Amino acid sequence: MKIAIVGATGAVGQQMLQCLEERNFDCDLKLLASARSKGKVFSYRGKDVVVEELNEHSFDDVDYALGATENDLTKKWMPWAQKNNVIVVDNSSAFRLDPDVPLVIPEINPEDIAKNHGLIANPNCATIIALVALNGLNKRYKIKRIICSTYQAVSGAGVKGIKDLENQSKDPSIPSQAFQYQIAYNLIPQIGSFDDLGISKEEWKMQNEGRKIWHNDDLLVNCTCVRVPIYRSHSESITIECEEEVDVKEAQEIVAKTEGCVLKDDPKNGIYPMPLDTTNQDLVYVGRIRKDISDLTGHSLIVFCCGDQIRKGAATNAVQILEKLVK
Amino acid sequence: MKIAIVGATGAVGQQMLQCLEERNFDCDLKLLASARSKGKVFSYRGKDVVVEELNEHSFDDVDYALGATENDLTKKWMPWAQKNNVIVVDNSSAFRLDPDVPLVIPEINPEDIAKNHGLIANPNCATIIALVALNGLNKRYKIKRIICSTYQAVSGAGVKGIKDLENQSKDPSIPSQAFQYQIAYNLIPQIGSFDDLGISKEEWKMQNEGRKIWHNDDLLVNCTCVRVPIYRSHSESITIECEEEVDVKEAQEIVAKTEGCVLKDDPKNGIYPMPLDTTNQDLVYVGRIRKDISDLTGHSLIVFCCGDQIRKGAATNAVQILEKLVK
Repeated sequence: MKIAIVGATGAVGQQMLQCLEERNFDCDLKLLASARSKGKVFSYRGKDVVVEELNEHSFDDVDYALGATENDLTKKWMPWAQKNNVIVVDNSSAFRLDPDVPLVIPEINPEDIAKNHGLIANPNCATIIALVALNGLNKRYKIKRIICSTYQAVSGAGVKGIKDLENQSKDPSIPSQAFQYQIAYNLIPQIGSFDDLGISKEEWKMQNEGRKIWHNDDLLVNCTCVRVPIYRSHSESITIECEEEVDVKEAQEIVAKTEGCVLKDDPKNGIYPMPLDTTNQDLVYVGRIRKDISDLTGHSLIVFCCGDQIRKGAATNAVQILEKLVK
Repeated sequence: MKIAIVGATGAVGQQMLQCLEERNFDCDLKLLASARSKGKVFSYRGKDVVVEELNEHSFDDVDYALGATENDLTKKWMPWAQKNNVIVVDNSSAFRLDPDVPLVIPEINPEDIAKNHGLIANPNCATIIALVALNGLNKRYKIKRIICSTYQAVSGAGVKGIKDLENQSKDPSIPSQAFQYQIAYNLIPQIGSFDDLGISKEEWKMQNEGRKIWHNDDLLVNCTCVRVPIYRSHSESITIECEEEVDVKEAQEIVAKTEGCVLKDDPKNGIYPMPLDTTNQDLVYVGRIRKDISDLTGHSLIVFCCGDQIRKGAATNAVQILEKLVK
């Protein structure tokens, strides 16, 4: 079995390589990237793999591909993969809302994988983290509305975002490469471009993708996405309004049993999710669970969650889909 | 006229001194602090002022005092001030909810100053910033409910908080003095201690103090307070639900005219509030104003605001109250 990582030298591509290695995934690996990275060598399961330049013929001998390139480039190489009947798990947002393309979080809607026509989309990172955190609660209480404010790490903007924070933490006058403004000791309430409603692309994703993943076209999401000076792991402050009345104790028990979640909820003893703690592992930490005292109907709950957006928010989720595909 | 700053060497006390100086406030100044700071010298309007140790007799020759000490200490010295009929503007939370003590944001409820019995309380920093941002909108649309997630700067935890971020930005292994965990490249979803509902002291303040300042006992607030690795200026992601239907264009015009606010709302051109921009000035920047698409009634609006929590969130607000008192 031959598996290609397309965009193998970027932050997500590199994490895909590491996830496959950790899981000791039995395959021949092909690493594809731009001409600039051609010839770079990475190790996979004890063997050297040389990065090849992505071109029309890259997929001739490939069975499955993990996509980790930007939308424009993804749209360019996808026909090359499809011509060769390669089954692709793609991390870009280019095809996520296409009705012919399943959008999958394996803990939530693994059954959708079987509906694929050669392409499965990996959801947005902040969406994966929120939906994993909320999935058990959604089953029990039926979530109608999500109000979310994010605290998103710089590595969400790739290797350049990490470099900006490194540089500016030492010298704030060093100009940003990945961001419009200084990010060290600052925050930027913009991720992606804005539409005429004043909503950013990133802010639309949780509603649009959440509806598709949960098969609930009535889901309503109010989202504010903010970049913060943290290297890795996104955090989210979330209020949910539900059809059923909520119970805090029960909600904590549900989260503790939800696949992919760890309950970290003993605030009096300093136990709550923090991005440092969720960095470089695959689970979503959930805590600060409490009744929303501003909703007198008792149908609203507040939670705080953190997850590694390069792992579970991107690479790990894609590899989990691949594992299910291969099975 | 003799004015004392109690707690003159702390972050807020020092800012009070600077605010008085900037406004060229005509008075004799007395700087009071603990024994540790006795003898330190600061300049005020060209004259040296020597820090004195706070004791029972400190207020014998004082007309007005600005309080910038923690609750416990404030409760100790307040009777000494009152015995001498000193009028105090106090920044601690010790007396804020006392029905005999006006709680004042001069742009919002200056008329409450006249109701004082020798003590006026300065509200919580995050509350001041939010209420200044929302005051015009509240007048027009009558806010029923606020859902707020904060991004609070380390200087809110005083000089030690600043030091922690400085140290850990260079070497994350240096232990925190002000915080329970590493704050550089991390966030901590705890400000103050928690009650049995899982709500922190800081998270209660916006509802309790907001009701008093706006004279609206029905105001409902859902608040999540988070410490972020930013030196100065708190940011807040806020959704408001109103009695009236909201209009984005009108809301922007209202904010632009609201006293104490600056409208920074042209996100397509990268114009939105950021904490770096609001640092070391007295206005609250408001932007990202948009309809809450998750409330189909059209009564909800989203805003993002930033303000310098040591200035407008504490020292400046207290000095503005003092100015009105003296008039």
